[in-house]
Amino acid sequence: MELVFLGTGAGVPSKERNVSAIALKLLQEQNCIWLFDCGEATQHQILYTSIKPRKITKIFISHLHGDHIYGLPGLLSSRSFQGGDTPLTIYGPQGLKSFIETSLNISGTHLTYPLTVMEISHGSIIKDEEITVYIEELDHVIPSFGFRIVENDKPGELLVHKLKEMGIEPGPIYQEIKEKAFVETSNGKRIYRKDVIGENKKGRIITILGDTRLSSRFTSFAKNADVLVHESTFREDKEALAEQYFHSTTSQAARLAKESNCKHLILTHISSRYQKEENEQLLQEAQAIFPQTDLAHDFSTFTIK
Amino acid sequence: MELVFLGTGAGVPSKERNVSAIALKLLQEQNCIWLFDCGEATQHQILYTSIKPRKITKIFISHLHGDHIYGLPGLLSSRSFQGGDTPLTIYGPQGLKSFIETSLNISGTHLTYPLTVMEISHGSIIKDEEITVYIEELDHVIPSFGFRIVENDKPGELLVHKLKEMGIEPGPIYQEIKEKAFVETSNGKRIYRKDVIGENKKGRIITILGDTRLSSRFTSFAKNADVLVHESTFREDKEALAEQYFHSTTSQAARLAKESNCKHLILTHISSRYQKEENEQLLQEAQAIFPQTDLAHDFSTFTIK
Ligand SMILES: [Zn+2]
Ligand SMILES: [Zn+2]
Repeated sequence: MELVFLGTGAGVPSKERNVSAIALKLLQEQNCIWLFDCGEATQHQILYTSIKPRKITKIFISHLHGDHIYGLPGLLSSRSFQGGDTPLTIYGPQGLKSFIETSLNISGTHLTYPLTVMEISHGSIIKDEEITVYIEELDHVIPSFGFRIVENDKPGELLVHKLKEMGIEPGPIYQEIKEKAFVETSNGKRIYRKDVIGENKKGRIITILGDTRLSSRFTSFAKNADVLVHESTFREDKEALAEQYFHSTTSQAARLAKESNCKHLILTHISSRYQKEENEQLLQEAQAIFPQTDLAHDFSTFTIK
Repeated sequence: MELVFLGTGAGVPSKERNVSAIALKLLQEQNCIWLFDCGEATQHQILYTSIKPRKITKIFISHLHGDHIYGLPGLLSSRSFQGGDTPLTIYGPQGLKSFIETSLNISGTHLTYPLTVMEISHGSIIKDEEITVYIEELDHVIPSFGFRIVENDKPGELLVHKLKEMGIEPGPIYQEIKEKAFVETSNGKRIYRKDVIGENKKGRIITILGDTRLSSRFTSFAKNADVLVHESTFREDKEALAEQYFHSTTSQAARLAKESNCKHLILTHISSRYQKEENEQLLQEAQAIFPQTDLAHDFSTFTIK
């Protein structure tokens, strides 16, 4: 799993930061990519990465502000133009469907692939074979959602030394033992999987919050996340402004990461009022509270082990 | 007058060319800028120019294909975000209003300036104090329009040597002579403006055609233009393909410029199939027919004298 930040600015594009979009690359896991938000020129940013639009199978939209959705019509059209033919599903707040339909219909765009738009609400759960996405409503000017992406636990490794002790040498039987509750050997002995397999490997957890004020409600939503991606529109001295505009500060994001026992915090959605040199200060404010913090720039990439 | 090409590609953005947008800078004439088409990321391109979105007072949309309109919602929002408060009028084909309204309403965007959307059709005329824009329907998959921008003729210069011969020395009376049909001097002599003023200065003419097949109808629409901006999606060997997709070739555009007695032809809307090194060949094909041809790149700027 890899997170690629395609746009890390707030509200309007600047030369330093494009508006919001994050790609979650699941190439090894599922040979596909999921996108979170799609601000204008997301498809332009993608030109400078190895991401192929046709590999994007799901798009999650946190809320309907322009800086999070105006890149959708163009990306959908280009995915088609470039010969994408695999299905695409978009999840987002009520109203999203009408925006997409109007944009595509008016421009006479006929997609070459099946497109489904699913409108989400608080408590929606999106279940995939290997991943479940939980959805929580945040606290923003308009309905805004967070996504908790939970990978299924994976069965542990076979305990080869134990099997060898039992006189079972490597061979096709190992695969059988992995797949069945028990296996009978040629000499009639039953081998129970639970006895010869290690502990379940915990699935990874990524929590991505859209634009929001801080709320204690989110502590359980971010609980134990391997990565928490949090907006950080303002510095800590602008808490009143953040409150007024339904956004968060660096230290609010860091407090949430700490209280939720997250492993790693990534700050994004940075106001263009902060110029290059101030980025370091934003980061330090968060790290003072939660040391395992990074501040995303456009094209920042993080591997989630 | 200055033409700035903000996007010169066809269909989809590439690293070399963004999708369509052209700015006509009328800063000296009217202290404003007009925009022709507004593909996705036009506002991003503008960041790399001296253009201020609040200076844009009119936007003309040739047709509703995504590569010509998907940048509108973002540009309109940013113009507001950056404190624009002067009126903006957008002219374009039927359906444009619904696209703009849906995009702005769904994203909860409240503009800080008055926005008017005027739907145009063949024969529409947009009259401004100093400029008249004529509109002609082109020949494309969906309704597509061309714009003939005609500057009013300006009165000639005062013939100072003639005035001096008549014994009238420079002073406030010169302004008076310019403004009135005749002026009476202190000694009761009548000076008629027409006798002491040079020939009218012809207004400039710019014809900008949206996506289209070639048609002989356009000869009069482009007649005597100082600049003809013409799409040139394909090279001359792809005339059949151009016909099929309702586009034009390099040499078709050049023939129109020649037959219309234009002074200057600028080719744009170049297919991404043509890489950097092929651009020179596209240009040569057109120049073989009409030598005063340029091929626009993103940020190409042309002054119209
Ligand atoms: Zn935002
Ligand atoms: Zn086009």
